Amino acid sequence: MKGLPESLNRLVEELEKLPGIGSKTAERLAFHILKASVDEAMGLAYAIRDLKKNTRLCSRCCNIDDSDPCWICSDGSRDASVICVVEQTRDLLALERSGSYRGLYHVLGGHISPLEGINPENLTIGKLLDRIGGDIKEVILATNPNMEGDVTANHIAGLLRPHGVKITRPARGLPPGATVECVSRAIITDAIRGRQTME
Amino acid sequence: MKGLPESLNRLVEELEKLPGIGSKTAERLAFHILKASVDEAMGLAYAIRDLKKNTRLCSRCCNIDDSDPCWICSDGSRDASVICVVEQTRDLLALERSGSYRGLYHVLGGHISPLEGINPENLTIGKLLDRIGGDIKEVILATNPNMEGDVTANHIAGLLRPHGVKITRPARGLPPGATVECVSRAIITDAIRGRQTME
Repeated sequence: MKGLPESLNRLVEELEKLPGIGSKTAERLAFHILKASVDEAMGLAYAIRDLKKNTRLCSRCCNIDDSDPCWICSDGSRDASVICVVEQTRDLLALERSGSYRGLYHVLGGHISPLEGINPENLTIGKLLDRIGGDIKEVILATNPNMEGDVTANHIAGLLRPHGVKITRPARGLPPGATVECVSRAIITDAIRGRQTME
Repeated sequence: MKGLPESLNRLVEELEKLPGIGSKTAERLAFHILKASVDEAMGLAYAIRDLKKNTRLCSRCCNIDDSDPCWICSDGSRDASVICVVEQTRDLLALERSGSYRGLYHVLGGHISPLEGINPENLTIGKLLDRIGGDIKEVILATNPNMEGDVTANHIAGLLRPHGVKITRPARGLPPGATVECVSRAIITDAIRGRQTME
């Protein structure tokens, strides 16, 4: 069976490469694009092209932006005495959305994971160390609360200690809305270990 | 909060226009494209462009293909005495995948639905009538087994009857794998009405 026309088939194949897009979804999306106006379809094609053309890594914090330094490093109103270290730009965006942090960032580009072939030298740890000194008083190690994130945070903490900077890690415990009955053992362990005195 | 860089934001907005893609998924896909190589990303952009540039409607059966007549109308080995009428190209592909049909097709481009503003003249019914006569002995009305599909099939059947061609509709009943206990009342009604003598 021949099936899809060649150009439709090619788009389905390209869409299937995207994460979480299976063959059925890819076909549904391709048919939507087929039926869409040329302007709509090309809007998507141009957006992909422009993304690859315009975005770059910030030379200071390795965040992604259309300009260098990025919008955070070039914002004079932010607290330049704190650096929050995150694994990837998406973590930075989540922190920004929470509105709970107004300092600078440093994007590692991943976490240490020898099994995946990611060693410390594959991350932007060297660039982070270059930024320490001067105004920087605190580094928050906001890697993910899992094995790889913990290993990465411990490794960086070891490198930062000689610089005499304050090193912190976000609190871990029960997430708002959860019930003690239903959360995992790992969450309860974190919550008990990190318990705080009620004043 | 500024949030995403401009070009990333634009791609997220374009992806959100696709059916079934919410803001979280759009962001995840955009970040994937951001991290992908230029070749990979542009492969997707070019596939969209080429789809819009190359595909057209078959002037005979209104199927979609890169060539006109389409791959089905130009396949001499198919049974040119039967036309299977479907609502859209995706239905045609499903029939082709089943391997149960070797005749020609006619793609209506939708179903009659006054509520959605789709009247018979918005479909390719005129083109279908132009094809009747000559070799055509049977027309299978394979519109969907629902209200709109039934209305559309009945309307077309009324127009075909004066031409003296055999008019059929695919069987309706219990789907393989279902249990009588669990299927809907509509399915049971169809199955009882269409019951067949065991030989």
